[in-house]
Amino acid sequence: MDSADSADPTDTAGSASRRSPADPQPVILVVEPYGGSIRRHNPALPLVYWDDAAVTRGDGVFETLLVRKGRAANFKRHARRFLASARLMELPEPDLDKWEEATRQAVESWYAENDGDARCVWTYTRGRASTGHPSAWIVVSAIPQTTLRQRKAGVKVMTAPRGYSINTMLPGVGDATTGTASPTPPSLAPWLTVGAKTLSYAANMAALRHANAHGFDDVIWVEAETGRVLEGATSSVVTVKKGGRLRTPTPGGDILPGTTQAALFGHARRQGWRCKEKDLYVDDLLRAESVWLVSSVRMGARVTALDGRKLPAPDNEAEIRRLIADALAR
Amino acid sequence: MDSADSADPTDTAGSASRRSPADPQPVILVVEPYGGSIRRHNPALPLVYWDDAAVTRGDGVFETLLVRKGRAANFKRHARRFLASARLMELPEPDLDKWEEATRQAVESWYAENDGDARCVWTYTRGRASTGHPSAWIVVSAIPQTTLRQRKAGVKVMTAPRGYSINTMLPGVGDATTGTASPTPPSLAPWLTVGAKTLSYAANMAALRHANAHGFDDVIWVEAETGRVLEGATSSVVTVKKGGRLRTPTPGGDILPGTTQAALFGHARRQGWRCKEKDLYVDDLLRAESVWLVSSVRMGARVTALDGRKLPAPDNEAEIRRLIADALAR
Repeated sequence: MDSADSADPTDTAGSASRRSPADPQPVILVVEPYGGSIRRHNPALPLVYWDDAAVTRGDGVFETLLVRKGRAANFKRHARRFLASARLMELPEPDLDKWEEATRQAVESWYAENDGDARCVWTYTRGRASTGHPSAWIVVSAIPQTTLRQRKAGVKVMTAPRGYSINTMLPGVGDATTGTASPTPPSLAPWLTVGAKTLSYAANMAALRHANAHGFDDVIWVEAETGRVLEGATSSVVTVKKGGRLRTPTPGGDILPGTTQAALFGHARRQGWRCKEKDLYVDDLLRAESVWLVSSVRMGARVTALDGRKLPAPDNEAEIRRLIADALAR
Repeated sequence: MDSADSADPTDTAGSASRRSPADPQPVILVVEPYGGSIRRHNPALPLVYWDDAAVTRGDGVFETLLVRKGRAANFKRHARRFLASARLMELPEPDLDKWEEATRQAVESWYAENDGDARCVWTYTRGRASTGHPSAWIVVSAIPQTTLRQRKAGVKVMTAPRGYSINTMLPGVGDATTGTASPTPPSLAPWLTVGAKTLSYAANMAALRHANAHGFDDVIWVEAETGRVLEGATSSVVTVKKGGRLRTPTPGGDILPGTTQAALFGHARRQGWRCKEKDLYVDDLLRAESVWLVSSVRMGARVTALDGRKLPAPDNEAEIRRLIADALAR
């Protein structure tokens, strides 16, 4: 998974990161779904109609991108996953050139009034029941304080079983959950939106609230029966091992392919790191040199404690942090 | 499950039921979440802000009620499930008196301009990230033509595995998924929103689109390994057997307790029917006198074919239909 940041539970449920009047105003651009005009929307006014599928059913897809040094980071991977999500959800094919152009405009508008990092969220919904046209918009806004703090200080994490499991033995599930499904293949079954990054995130949000209420910052999902590590509530899990090795659980099935993890592995390999996707278990986390939750806007948050067990800082903490930052700067 | 109607995929994805300009306008009442004022909202204007959790995360709960003969049918059961959903999602306790009053006002406004049945949807979300207050509103609108047609003509149904299964062995899952969890119990784990009627319905919507694309009207979820029957995509499954017997799969776990099924069983028992909640398998559906998908607005839609196998109309079809209608008239 990805975009820990817009999913930050304190961003909606707590009071710590609530926006004060002095906070910068978000930039909202409404995108015409079939590639037409782009218009600026006033954030002080409502945006979405009562009968939009996003509101009535969580029926849409999204991506969260880091805005850094004047541009949206890791753009291509996000665009690719966005396209895969839209296909899985059988939304009209988004015009990625148009989304790129709108993102460029939104980022430019943001920097006209603000400095530093920001987050950019793309939303693409099935739209209004009364019109049948999709809705689409881009928001560039400030990064919550909690996210910035966790980048530096790391996160205390609890492990938890999801409470449900994806049946990867069903035909087509493998392809769909890795985002490699071809457009509208006739054999795809209805349950395959498990691989799409949809707006239906209520369970993840509940898990983060639960974690917060019990003194944790985040959750790592594990398979109840085996202790196999899946992913963070809104991030991918990466371990660092001695000898310059990075590991992450193999994406697909229960595990949404992470854009930040992919960027990190691509960059790290070029720097001589040995990177592998393979099954990980809770014991592997405890034995690693360090454990990271990687996602687009929070980037890398080191796991400083797992289920109450302290995970000491490794000697190469700064190096890993730089590795992640450099991977996203490309 | 319930509220097949607002979930009707042709209502958002197809063209058949798209609203024409002559269609009646919905009545929208915005409810102050802490029990304050109620105000009418113009349906021609956007309602929801960019940072509302309903839009960003499908993070909220809803109920769909049938409006009939001047009132919201089966009110108490809907109110009870709404309260249970809100508790599971740790939303501030809704003031049910206020919701009842707002519903009464909305229904009254509807009948000032329209006749006949309508549907009433309650929505209660975690609200805007920037304010931290929940959002709440009620919409009374026309029932889609597809729904009215399916009430009369029945539905052709495909069975499908959900693609995921709920782990009911985890502590607390049983209570939570039957809506019997006490308020904010400390032992409840974060995954328990599986029992709440949340806005995160994307997978169900995808299943209905898939069914439609393959010539079916609806989906009945079955357990992949065993063929155990769970529920319709947006309804409860009820079978009618010889000797005046009604059966439905035991609610809880994978099966959301249905308000319409509960009303039907309550009423039918008083009429001398023997009603039982027990495990059902696909074979039980094929052997039944008749099979029904029951939900609030569509009421009862008889299953006329299952996976391509025709299920002939029973002699007592009209009687069953009346039984359901009478159950909802109370």
